[in-house]
Amino acid sequence: MATENQKNFISKNKEYASTFDQGHLALPPAKKYLVVTCMDARIDTARAFGIDLGDAHVIRNAGGNPDLRSILISQHLLGTREIILVKHTGCGMLTFTNADALKLVAQNAGAGILSSTFDFQPFADLEQAVKDDVAWLKEQSALVERTNISGWVYEVETGKAKQIV
Amino acid sequence: MATENQKNFISKNKEYASTFDQGHLALPPAKKYLVVTCMDARIDTARAFGIDLGDAHVIRNAGGNPDLRSILISQHLLGTREIILVKHTGCGMLTFTNADALKLVAQNAGAGILSSTFDFQPFADLEQAVKDDVAWLKEQSALVERTNISGWVYEVETGKAKQIV
Repeated sequence: MATENQKNFISKNKEYASTFDQGHLALPPAKKYLVVTCMDARIDTARAFGIDLGDAHVIRNAGGNPDLRSILISQHLLGTREIILVKHTGCGMLTFTNADALKLVAQNAGAGILSSTFDFQPFADLEQAVKDDVAWLKEQSALVERTNISGWVYEVETGKAKQIV
Repeated sequence: MATENQKNFISKNKEYASTFDQGHLALPPAKKYLVVTCMDARIDTARAFGIDLGDAHVIRNAGGNPDLRSILISQHLLGTREIILVKHTGCGMLTFTNADALKLVAQNAGAGILSSTFDFQPFADLEQAVKDDVAWLKEQSALVERTNISGWVYEVETGKAKQIV
């Protein structure tokens, strides 16, 4: 039986498809850039970051970490040449340590299921984390040369983004 | 100097923030679910999947692979209890092999930069890949028990989604 969230997906998707007229868009992102950001529920990447359908790859995960596998595919297979990395205020990654997370997994799912060295990759300083990720990306020799890489913070309280680096 | 894509981000974000009134939303997703999908530029997750701001985590990467680190954080730290995994027609991951990708990286960035065993995780059969990822997720004992997990295909040509498993 469908869950409430599945029912919502089905009905909203039906509505979306009923007026959909973008089936002609090409696979490679038209504006040759990719955005990396957090999975946070309060971020609507298309609207808040101004990404029109077909224009950019969007990579999202806990914390907005640079996912090298996806970035290399985006660059080498699909031709993107610019990376915009966006972390955000109020990020969950600022609120816990690896030890906290391991304890919760043990409580919810059972002790010893995850290795004690499992790295959830939390961070303690938002702007520093943006700078660190951009610096790390700039060191990756597998990226296409002269890739433009910038780092930003999005404020979930105001909807405003600002460039950090 | 700002790139065209950065200028677009700044101007569109300014417009978005000027009418933004959702600064009160809480960190944990209100509808306690997460969506995993591809980074593909032709997917507007909020509109196509009917996700209102604040309702669900959105994880995106090349192919829409289940990213265990992000999923565990979503579940154990932020309370989600349902996973909707969506792959799509026309996916780039269906178009190359690891050997192809390694060759392109070598051409674009230099030979020998990536290990010859680097796995870009391409797949050959779309519906099978959905089934495989859902089956893999169901085997993960670190997830919260009785997590509802479903797998879908989204058609970039029509805007329509259908459930596979």
